[in-house]
Amino acid sequence: MVTIHDVAKAAGVSIATVSRVLNNNNVVTESKRERVFQVMRELGYVPVSRTAKSAPGNQIILVVSSIFPMLEEVYSGIAASIRELDAHYEVALCYTANTKNNYHNALSLIKMLPPELLRGLIFFNNVCADEGLMTEFQRYPLVQIGEYVEQEPVFAVSTDDRRALYDITKLLIDRGRRRFVLVSNYFSPERRSYRFCTRREAGFRAALEEAGIPFNRDMIFSVDYTVEGGIDAARKIAELTPQPDAVVCVSDYIAAGCVMELRELGVSVPDQIAVTGFDDIEIAETCRPRLTTVRQSFEEMGMEAVRMLDALCAGSLNIGRTTCISHSIIERGSA
Amino acid sequence: MVTIHDVAKAAGVSIATVSRVLNNNNVVTESKRERVFQVMRELGYVPVSRTAKSAPGNQIILVVSSIFPMLEEVYSGIAASIRELDAHYEVALCYTANTKNNYHNALSLIKMLPPELLRGLIFFNNVCADEGLMTEFQRYPLVQIGEYVEQEPVFAVSTDDRRALYDITKLLIDRGRRRFVLVSNYFSPERRSYRFCTRREAGFRAALEEAGIPFNRDMIFSVDYTVEGGIDAARKIAELTPQPDAVVCVSDYIAAGCVMELRELGVSVPDQIAVTGFDDIEIAETCRPRLTTVRQSFEEMGMEAVRMLDALCAGSLNIGRTTCISHSIIERGSA
Repeated sequence: MVTIHDVAKAAGVSIATVSRVLNNNNVVTESKRERVFQVMRELGYVPVSRTAKSAPGNQIILVVSSIFPMLEEVYSGIAASIRELDAHYEVALCYTANTKNNYHNALSLIKMLPPELLRGLIFFNNVCADEGLMTEFQRYPLVQIGEYVEQEPVFAVSTDDRRALYDITKLLIDRGRRRFVLVSNYFSPERRSYRFCTRREAGFRAALEEAGIPFNRDMIFSVDYTVEGGIDAARKIAELTPQPDAVVCVSDYIAAGCVMELRELGVSVPDQIAVTGFDDIEIAETCRPRLTTVRQSFEEMGMEAVRMLDALCAGSLNIGRTTCISHSIIERGSA
Repeated sequence: MVTIHDVAKAAGVSIATVSRVLNNNNVVTESKRERVFQVMRELGYVPVSRTAKSAPGNQIILVVSSIFPMLEEVYSGIAASIRELDAHYEVALCYTANTKNNYHNALSLIKMLPPELLRGLIFFNNVCADEGLMTEFQRYPLVQIGEYVEQEPVFAVSTDDRRALYDITKLLIDRGRRRFVLVSNYFSPERRSYRFCTRREAGFRAALEEAGIPFNRDMIFSVDYTVEGGIDAARKIAELTPQPDAVVCVSDYIAAGCVMELRELGVSVPDQIAVTGFDDIEIAETCRPRLTTVRQSFEEMGMEAVRMLDALCAGSLNIGRTTCISHSIIERGSA
């Protein structure tokens, strides 16, 4: 997809200049303005705002890759924002079941809609790895929530995952924990993982290094993104010598499996090993001990996504952006 | 300052619940709603939206710590956004000259304004290190641009500095460069630096490690954030054996000083040593060779800041957030 960066480069002007031309800012000389428009025509550049304006309808399609418990919150935020804007947008859910084929199906469905009815797309935890397919989706106003694909122009609302894991790891360090394990999710071509896991790993590592605790890759266990994955991790952790005193998990599912199985194996949580989760979903309250975890504000993400989509549709956004809603640490019994 | 997190903790409910209460979402039971309101009264919590609504005027105060060349772009973005919103906001500049005392003066000035005239504050490159002073500023709707203070609730618009340095370092690695120096700015209690320098250092390091190039702290030179600082760095770099083949700088000022002095010393740029800058300010075009650098979109930041301030004033934002506008790499002759 031709971006504002390509136009700036080909026209030999700064992005600010292209942006000014798009915003009808009269600081730009007529000759420069001409040149920019000419390059746009040559490259077939469609301003983000133009794409958006071709979608003036009221129908928002919310594309989700998995039925996460956070979906309810996302939806509630979207609805709250629509009420607040006093708009008459309708939201339809489209479930892709996490496979490339299903993203194809989602696209077919979207293409079948009469264009004048569509307002735009919101993707929740987008795992579409196909560049060409993403380019097709990007012909519509598109905002991503949570996991997002970094194909420019990116319009995303997420959490600062790196910072969140840094914060929770630092909390454990401040309480005297020193021997760490991180339980993360697979990252390999066959067993794909969320990109946010990579960011969380970087935050974990940064906290350790800042405290002078040596880091090495062996401290990271990769398991399924499920309660079962946490159980698997706990079995391996219980056999380590010396035993770690802190297990940081990239998800509440994993952390819940981990605390339950550690207890089964006679390890006391948090006395011998502190365990932390991520997300603050229901299982964080229902497992014992209850999980100390990171709370992402999915409702605020939903609200922000609608606002961003609206600005996109109004033609006000010329360059991509990622908004990180502040997270918080919820302290319970597991750490 | 009492935040939504404190309320949630004291009321024993999730932040989502507090947020729902604030948004009049009727999913919340009456008893929970009562409890949340009671805790708010006890803690003296003022919702972000309430603070904002106490500032219904048209006057925006733009507080700047230094007269950076990017200020013009920020201002132009703010003006464009105001036009677009069809609002009648006025923008007054307040210059703090980068010292604590001058932030005190800025606060006095703001307090002198009749409250009904004020809309809110926009800080550009905020270096106010005094927590109490920041809390005072945060009684007003406040959005920060560029450098920002992470005191919750944060409403900021910036660049992903870590990612930007990662991208430009990776570009050099992809072109075969292997022996790196990073020229950064001081960070010490006496010789303070911008927090964005720390983030840029992390990005530099991540790119090296990903490519299997060993990183150590000795690769980072700290100099003044000026052309002179770059000259100082160049003199040290020219004496290194083996000579580095790539010098990544955290600012165009530093990079410009560096390329000019390296040439003086008979080192060929970019053949022997590639040099990169950050910001794409005028000097990046005027020095020889011209600088390959990172372009931040300060105009878009200014536009986004007004939009964020508006949502804050409308009472639509309950939790802090940081929006990173996408950057781009501008390739010229120095790398």
